[in-house]
Amino acid sequence: MIEKKIRIGNLYDFYGELLTHKQKSVIELFCIQDFTLAEISEELKISRQAAFDSIKRSEKTLENYENKLGLYEKFTNTREGIEFILNRANDLRKHDNIIEKIETCKILDEIIDMANSVLTQNQED
Amino acid sequence: MIEKKIRIGNLYDFYGELLTHKQKSVIELFCIQDFTLAEISEELKISRQAAFDSIKRSEKTLENYENKLGLYEKFTNTREGIEFILNRANDLRKHDNIIEKIETCKILDEIIDMANSVLTQNQED
Repeated sequence: MIEKKIRIGNLYDFYGELLTHKQKSVIELFCIQDFTLAEISEELKISRQAAFDSIKRSEKTLENYENKLGLYEKFTNTREGIEFILNRANDLRKHDNIIEKIETCKILDEIIDMANSVLTQNQED
Repeated sequence: MIEKKIRIGNLYDFYGELLTHKQKSVIELFCIQDFTLAEISEELKISRQAAFDSIKRSEKTLENYENKLGLYEKFTNTREGIEFILNRANDLRKHDNIIEKIETCKILDEIIDMANSVLTQNQED
């Protein structure tokens, strides 16, 4: 359930503006403020069932956008690629023997390969 | 007009799946196959006015999604950041005097700063 809540929250970050005002209120309480169904029901003066149904409908809508557009997955891959680049660049920065040319070049090649790979995924055309 | 066509094409790459089947056909002919209104009209057996109106409606829909979600702009910024990283890493790779530690560290710091900046823009939370 925690994993599902995190996923809904992540998709909400991407596609949340396409939900209705009411759906947004429910998802923000559920995912961002981590309210229980009972707490959402009390806060918004709706039944628990209505809160549950609204979350389910929103989840379906958000997953539907992701199925069509796949932008959350694309961003996740990009972020992972950049995290890799950052870690390796930091390794290189800390490398005390930066004059060890072979190792330096190896790491740089990894950075270049990853940047190229992330760029390919982010092509417009 | 060329710039507008390119922008519609770019937004279509992101949000095209949210258009209707007919809108998709028109935009693909217009932006990807670079058809004129007359050619679209002939290809789809619709009037030029209908082709023009369909493009206008699609453009409005795509811009509306971008206004709400801003994902195309986000991706563009990310791509520019990674292009910068790639160029600088390539500079470093070609750097014959890679043992010139100060210059190496300066370029690496630029790579790290840019990777951090791109990552910050791609935060989920």
